[in-house]
Parts: sequence; C-alpha cells; structure tokens
Amino acid sequence: MAYIYTAKKLFSFLLFFMMHRRIFIKQSCLVAAGVGVVGNLLAHAAPPATALRVNGKRIETRIFELAKFGLDDKGRGYRVAYTNGDVQGRAWFMNLMQKAGLNPSIDAAGNIVGRRSGSNPLLKPIAFGSHIDMVPDGGNYDGTLGSIAALEVIEVLNENNIVTQHPLEVIIFANEEGGTIGSQALTDGLTPAGLAQKSPMGLTVEQGIRAIGGNPNALASCLRKKGDLKAFLELHIEQGGILEREKLQIGVVQGIVGIVHWEVTVQGFANHAGTTPMNQRQDALLAASKFIVAVNRVATAQQGNQVGTVGKIEVQPGAYNVVPGKVILGLEIRDLSAAKIENLFAQMQQRATAIAAETKTTISFNRQANAVAPALTSPAVQKVVETAAKSLGLSTKYMQSGAGHDAQHMAHIAPTGMIFVPSIGGISHSPKEYSTPADMANGANVLLQAIFQLDKS
Amino acid sequence: MAYIYTAKKLFSFLLFFMMHRRIFIKQSCLVAAGVGVVGNLLAHAAPPATALRVNGKRIETRIFELAKFGLDDKGRGYRVAYTNGDVQGRAWFMNLMQKAGLNPSIDAAGNIVGRRSGSNPLLKPIAFGSHIDMVPDGGNYDGTLGSIAALEVIEVLNENNIVTQHPLEVIIFANEEGGTIGSQALTDGLTPAGLAQKSPMGLTVEQGIRAIGGNPNALASCLRKKGDLKAFLELHIEQGGILEREKLQIGVVQGIVGIVHWEVTVQGFANHAGTTPMNQRQDALLAASKFIVAVNRVATAQQGNQVGTVGKIEVQPGAYNVVPGKVILGLEIRDLSAAKIENLFAQMQQRATAIAAETKTTISFNRQANAVAPALTSPAVQKVVETAAKSLGLSTKYMQSGAGHDAQHMAHIAPTGMIFVPSIGGISHSPKEYSTPADMANGANVLLQAIFQLDKS
Repeated sequence: MAYIYTAKKLFSFLLFFMMHRRIFIKQSCLVAAGVGVVGNLLAHAAPPATALRVNGKRIETRIFELAKFGLDDKGRGYRVAYTNGDVQGRAWFMNLMQKAGLNPSIDAAGNIVGRRSGSNPLLKPIAFGSHIDMVPDGGNYDGTLGSIAALEVIEVLNENNIVTQHPLEVIIFANEEGGTIGSQALTDGLTPAGLAQKSPMGLTVEQGIRAIGGNPNALASCLRKKGDLKAFLELHIEQGGILEREKLQIGVVQGIVGIVHWEVTVQGFANHAGTTPMNQRQDALLAASKFIVAVNRVATAQQGNQVGTVGKIEVQPGAYNVVPGKVILGLEIRDLSAAKIENLFAQMQQRATAIAAETKTTISFNRQANAVAPALTSPAVQKVVETAAKSLGLSTKYMQSGAGHDAQHMAHIAPTGMIFVPSIGGISHSPKEYSTPADMANGANVLLQAIFQLDKS
Repeated sequence: MAYIYTAKKLFSFLLFFMMHRRIFIKQSCLVAAGVGVVGNLLAHAAPPATALRVNGKRIETRIFELAKFGLDDKGRGYRVAYTNGDVQGRAWFMNLMQKAGLNPSIDAAGNIVGRRSGSNPLLKPIAFGSHIDMVPDGGNYDGTLGSIAALEVIEVLNENNIVTQHPLEVIIFANEEGGTIGSQALTDGLTPAGLAQKSPMGLTVEQGIRAIGGNPNALASCLRKKGDLKAFLELHIEQGGILEREKLQIGVVQGIVGIVHWEVTVQGFANHAGTTPMNQRQDALLAASKFIVAVNRVATAQQGNQVGTVGKIEVQPGAYNVVPGKVILGLEIRDLSAAKIENLFAQMQQRATAIAAETKTTISFNRQANAVAPALTSPAVQKVVETAAKSLGLSTKYMQSGAGHDAQHMAHIAPTGMIFVPSIGGISHSPKEYSTPADMANGANVLLQAIFQLDKS
C-alpha cells in the first residue's frame, strides 16, 4: 500500500497527524516499504488507511441519481436487465467510472469491468462490485449499493492519491436478477441452454447480452480462472430483517445458500362440487394444502436457518363448483448445506406419500434443472471483513445469505467475502426496500477497510 | 285420461288384454269417465297406461344424433349456449318436436316450448323437459337425456294415440349451464345485471338470447305465474355416484341444494423466500392451506349431505422464490338447508380467525351475489315419482340434487319433481359422462308413468 500525497493536502494531514500519532507510526512502516525517496517523503504526510472514510452523502446522492434510469410507464422501478433503462443506467455508471479513471469496458457477457493499477504489477487484482439491474417494480438498494460503494472506494483512493499494491477491479455484473448471468459467464461459463433462456424482459439471454454491448460469440474471452484474482468482495443489503431486528450493523456472510426447486404435481380427480359427496372426492387442492402445511412443519421442526417455501400454485380446472382435479405447485428449499436440503426434501416426500394415500391422490416431484449449490465464502476473507468492521467500531454477526448473489459464482474462482448491511423491515425486491445512509456508509467503509487489509496481506 | 285407439292396433291389444285382465278392468273405469260413446268403444281396445313403455333404442340413437351438433375444433363437445352448435342442436330438436306435433316455438328468453292439447281444455298443463346446452368439453347426457326423454314421452303417446286430460308442455330451457338462465326468465325473471353478464361463450346473456331467436325486450311475455302449471317434472342423470354405488335405479329428488359462494382473501406479506426466516413470515398461502384443510374438516365433521369446496385459488405474486403475500380463493357450500349452510360457514369463519392469528395474516370473506336458495320439490310429486318407479319394479332412493337444475326455478311456480338415473362413476361435465341405455329407458318410463299419474289426479 502506497500513499502518494499532493502538497495541497499536507496542511490537513499535519492536523490529522497530531490527532492520530500512534496509528500513523504503524502505518508509516508500511508506507516505507512501498515507495521511493520522494514518494516516501510525501507519504509521511499521508493519513493512516484506517482513518479514511467514504463520502456517505455521495453514496446516497448516487443511489437516487441511478434510480432515475429505468422506470415503467407508472413511474415504478423497471431497470430490468437488457432493457433501455438498464442500458441507460449502465451508461451513467460507466461515465462515472471513466471519470474515476477506471477505464471501463464491457466484457463479452455484458459485465462492466473497470481497472485501477496497483503499485506491484505482479500481484493479482482484488475485485469487488455488484449489479445495477433490478426486478420489475424493484427497489433502489439491491445490487446498486454494492456497485456505487465499489465506485466510492475508488473515489476515496483517488481523492487521497492512494495506490494499492494490488491492482483493483470494479465489476458491475450483467443481469443478476435474471439468474446471475454475468457472474456465471465470468466463472462457470454459460451453457447454450442458458443463452437460449428467456430473460425476464422477454429477450433471450443471448439477445440481451448483445443489447447491452456484449458479444455472446466470444464468451470464452471473459472467463476467469481459479486463482486469477486475489479476492472478491461484494457489499449488499441484507434483504432480510435479521440485522435490523438484532440491532447489528454489519453481517459477515459465511456463504450463500443452495437453492433447489421442485415442481410438485398433485393428481386427483376433477368432479362436480355439488354432486360428489365429501367421502368420494379425490381433491387435489385439499391434498396440496395438506402438503403445504407439511412443508412448513418440516422446515420449522429443526434448529437452523433452513427455509422451505411454496410460493406458487395453480389449480385445474379452477372453478368454485368443481372439485380440483390437478394442482401444480412450486417448492423451494434453501440451506447452506446441500445435505440438509436433501434431508428436508426426503422428509417432505415422506409426508407427501402419506397425504396422497389419505386423499386418494398422487403427488409427484420434478426437480428443476436450475438448482444452485451452496457457495461458502472464504473463512480468511470473512475474518478480514470482521476485522475491518471491528476496526470501525461496528457490531457484526456471522450469517448466511438466503438470497443468491454474484458472489456465489465468484466463490468458485476466488476467495470471496460478502458484507451485509441492514435492510429496513427486511424488505427486498420492492419499492419499499430501504437502507439508511449511515448503514450504507458503514458497509462502504467496511469494504474500503477490507480492501486495505487484503492489500496488506 | 283417454285412449283413442286405431283399428290396426286392436289385434295386438286383444292379446294384451288376455295377459293383463285385472289391470285393464281398473283402467277402463277411468277411460269411461273421459270420452263419449264412440270413443269409449274404441278405448276399450286400449292397453293400460301402466303397460306402455318408451323406446329405449330411440332414446339412445337420439342421444348420439344430438351429440354431433356443437363440436370444437378438436372434436370435443362444445354445444355451449348461444354458440352455432347450440343453434344447430336446437334446430334439430325443434324439427323432431314439429314432427311429433308439438308445434314448437321459441319464447322471449330463448326457451323452446312445445304443446300438446289435452282432452280437458280447462286443466292446467303438465310440463316436463330439461336443456340441451352443455359445458365446454362436456358430456352427452347432462340435460340431453331429460330433453330427449320428454320428446320420447310424446312419441309414445302419439304412437298409442293417447290424449291426456291435461295439456302437456315440453320445455327445453335455454342456457342452463351458464346459470339456468332460461328457467329463471320463465319463473323469477332476469335482472338487468343478469342480462348484462357474460355467458361462458363470450356474448352477454342479452346478446345470446337474440342469437338463439329470443327477444330480450319482451321477457315479460314468457313469465309463468305460480299456479299456471299442474306440475313440472325433470328427468336428469344423477351427476354423482350415489345411485351407482348403491346399485339403485331411480333417485326421487327431494330438492336441489342451496349454493353460496364466498371469495376469500388471505392477506399476508410478500417477502423474499431466501432471506425471510420461517418465524418472520406472513405467508398467505400457508394460511390459505390451513383454511382449506379446515373447510374440509368442518364439512365432514357432521352427518349429512352438506359439501364444502375450495375449487379455485390464486396466489400473488406467485413465484418459487417469494413468500406469498396474498391469496384469493373460492369457497362454496351446498346443502338442502339454508340454515345449515350458514352454520357451516360460521364454523369455517371461526377457524379462519384462529388461522389468521396464528399465521399473522388477515382472512376476509366476500359473499357473492349469485347465491342460490335451496329449492325443495313437492312431496306429492315425489310420491308420484316413487309410485311410478315402484310400478315399474324399479328400486328407488330419496336423495338431494347437489347440482343446480332448471327444476329449482320451476319449483317456485309449480309442484315440481325430479327423477335421477345413475351416472356411471358419478362423472359429469366431462366427455366421460355416461348412463346406460337401460338406465335411460328406466328414467324415461318413470317420467311417462309419473305423467300418467299426475294426469289422473
């Protein structure tokens, strides 16, 4: 880590020095290792890294500026990946990156990548970032905070004329909400089926990548290998209410849960609701209801953070006066342990067998191809994040991420960490999504300090 | 009741007379009361009414002939009211009525009404019939059997040159499946809202009535008053499996159940299914599922024929990864007693209150305007039907109709009876709907004999 200070900051530094004498002495050892005689002389004028803070007001302002891009005709947030709003938001972001000297480019998958040189060209880059696309009628913090905070880190370094030893990379991943497409392309690669799938706004992923300036024919060019990066960090709003409820400031993410979906089909027999006696029915919706209750019981019967959800249901034929003949529902289980997911599912299946017998229906399960394996973050990076938070006097909690993130793919190729900040009411994917300016600044400061620590190591 | 026999039937009658001497003597007393000297002489040649039987083969043939009218592009039954198929089927039917001397006309509501004079013009008509429209992808027996059997009764009378004392009316009601529209128009009358409602094929009822030759501006002309008819009889397939399961031949219908619908709204809070811990959820689908199970428990907890059904459900937003925020479901309760319906509903509401508290949701009920009051058939006509069946050596069961029928409206203006025949597997509103030729003939013979009995009284 090297501090190359301009003369104009010298005076303010002298004041700072008087206040932080002991910290300065520690920092100056590091400084001495990194730069030459002239640099060294100036560097002695630099404040300690631990004293640097992000500009919370600038983060907040940029959150609202970005929110202006991508609105639907009712004024609701609609910066859905590959739409015009997404393209405009990305252009705005790249312009800021350009001004910050990051020389941004769009990779083949549509990810925006900006680079800042380090003082030691032999070192691997430290990467950080998030995404700026959103779900329809979504909020202004999911992804956006981590993106704007990544840029903020660069701004702080620029303003303080700091050059880290490691090169830095800011990555704004494309189409996170449509299935972490950009981060998959960068790590595991996209399959032909993945390219052909429809993204939420209607285009296929392949068409969408073109719409934002990527090149789906050259996807190999954006692949990163394991070991290409020193580390990857993502700051994100929690999207749940745990930190807020427990009045804690920083979540140190241990991993991103695995997710498995099953399409569950309950086959009964449709019949006239007036003429079919209760004891003669094969009511698919009654069976489905008993199963939904059973899913909840299995998911809540043991300690842990596992979740089991039935979020969708369709009934056929679906009329007041017809005993339901068929129900299709969507079951999702998430946990940080793949084995636990399988165990929970086995219990639910067992309950389903009993319910089917009792209701004279059949219940079958079709595991969906989109399963996501749990992704554990690096314990070393978790420690870095925790230490950074503690150095800032912030309270922390080791926790899992129940939501998917680009970090889960980055964990396949680099030691990865995630920083959570509170999300008021745990609300997410909604215009009501909100994190306070103070919490956002805390998160960005942890990101900054974690980068400094990683740079040292 | 008068028998006016042609000479050519005399020989066969003489044979018959030898076999049924005792019955004939009884019948001939009635005959003597009804006609003059010449008629009396010929009448002595007539077989007893109890000996007359419908032509089962002709009923079966006509069932299949009518089934050719009104098919969708996949060849499925689609003689939905007001469609071209309905118009064609009605034309075919009216042609047969014309040939049978019924001189059919279309009333203002689109009902087809055919009349046959009685020997005593001072008596009120005995009416009978059903409907020939069907639900989409429906079956060939629902409504159709009662309509074709009504025509068959006339054919048998014609073939045997019988003139009843009472005039007879064959009524083929319009748009039964879209809400017993034709029979409502004829009895209680249609409201402006009823005329404006969309029928299942897309036209409004008003437009549909025009499409089949009615005149919605002259609906007052088709209204019948209480006392206008001697009685009304409807033969129908059971549409449930009770008769078949109990191996019985004729259902004597005590009444048509009342039906009340409630739109039930469960309001929870939509949230991220990955990040919202199980104990923090306000899952509207979980609450709805518990309620559906409770509906079933309440409906099955007491003796009786009551049914409670949740046949439709919609969840919002309806995705694998979102805890459901809102569920709207359709609750239906049917019973022959209006008080019992209200009592069952009160119990379900009470359960809902507990479920809402337990799941941190709210559950509200919106009673729909389409409630149908229970309609009891006439005990005297029930007895007539039972006696007719017993005279034919058929087994009977007093039972309720769980389905709505035109008879439920006719019961408002006339002593009404319904005759059920077994429906194989209890299947209804399906191409798999089936009643055997023997059962259909049994039902038509009961109708014929019941008409004879009513004519005597």
